[in-house]
Amino acid sequence: MEEEAKVVLLGARFSMFEMRVKIALAEKGIKYEYMEQDLTNKSTLLQEMNPIHKKIPVLIHHGRPICESLIIVEYIDMVWDNNCPLLPSDPYHKAQARFWADFVDQKVYHASKRVWISKGDEKEVAKKDFLESLKQLEEFLGDKPYFGGDTFGFVDVALIPFYCWFYTYETFGNFKVEGEYPKLISWAKRCMQKESVSETLADEREVYEAVLDYKNKFILN
Amino acid sequence: MEEEAKVVLLGARFSMFEMRVKIALAEKGIKYEYMEQDLTNKSTLLQEMNPIHKKIPVLIHHGRPICESLIIVEYIDMVWDNNCPLLPSDPYHKAQARFWADFVDQKVYHASKRVWISKGDEKEVAKKDFLESLKQLEEFLGDKPYFGGDTFGFVDVALIPFYCWFYTYETFGNFKVEGEYPKLISWAKRCMQKESVSETLADEREVYEAVLDYKNKFILN
Repeated sequence: MEEEAKVVLLGARFSMFEMRVKIALAEKGIKYEYMEQDLTNKSTLLQEMNPIHKKIPVLIHHGRPICESLIIVEYIDMVWDNNCPLLPSDPYHKAQARFWADFVDQKVYHASKRVWISKGDEKEVAKKDFLESLKQLEEFLGDKPYFGGDTFGFVDVALIPFYCWFYTYETFGNFKVEGEYPKLISWAKRCMQKESVSETLADEREVYEAVLDYKNKFILN
Repeated sequence: MEEEAKVVLLGARFSMFEMRVKIALAEKGIKYEYMEQDLTNKSTLLQEMNPIHKKIPVLIHHGRPICESLIIVEYIDMVWDNNCPLLPSDPYHKAQARFWADFVDQKVYHASKRVWISKGDEKEVAKKDFLESLKQLEEFLGDKPYFGGDTFGFVDVALIPFYCWFYTYETFGNFKVEGEYPKLISWAKRCMQKESVSETLADEREVYEAVLDYKNKFILN
């Protein structure tokens, strides 16, 4: 309990990167203090804890910061290794899990952001890239219940927060994911049955309203 | 020996990502078969081994591909764990090593590429970003002999291949790294005393000639 009391998470609502960390902490049953950060006016604490990127999420454990969501999730999995392993122990399967989590960052995230932030031809390219990335994930998932096999793991943690952003991508991009990728949607619904996920993911309409508000404030249309 | 004979590396000369893998294999003393890839005409083997990104490097071990250079280096460190550990075992220090290796990919690589590929104002911004990333590395290095402390490790493997590209960045960008970042240059020279590094890194003039040739062929000036 004393160990757990020393865990602090600097986050921001609606960030899929923050949600990854919350899900990992919930899976492991770790109690922590949550400190919401204002990203339009970054706190001294955030700037001190992540002086290089000045971004959330930051996990502070024993006063020491760990930054970058996938690195934090791996850290949590290493430190609290007594239950719910997120990464497999076999080197090849571990490398494969890291590859697909990195794919989510490299492909899914960048394409999905361009879907709601861009317009015209750029938006059409973004939609194509985003749907192509989902197709590749659908193929890799295949008939497995989770990306790593029978249990919820690292790639699931990396990807599932994007599910509560689907409504935003669909609305800005004028498309539907559900019909196209049935296995991926079944997987997402399966993940949502886990308390660690359902209690972490934001409401899809609230995500959309926040994105709309952000666009109106900061992006010239 | 039989185990080692099953290691194949798909690479391409002058790629800093390929060099990372070669250095890690050399550090561990692993024999492998090297298969140079023509990136202007990608082989069926490369496309089959890395169907998602179709990029080098790919390490093939027991017939199974591992992709993405930092993931490959971690794989090598896990599988051949009997000598020369590249990552520390402590979770916090491991997270810190991953953070800085990721920094090299996110910041150093992207800025350095823009230095030789762009022109005008964009090149000036790229130079500033590149030099800022070196400054941050110089500060993190401090007075340590290597990024992880007393021994050559993960961050060193991630960064040192860029050293043989410095001449290219300097020539296209019209600046000098050496005077500005003495600790970083001392570190690079220290790394070059290791056979795993000196036998892997390309000649800086050959890198420059190859980049010049590439620009003339594929990039409109």
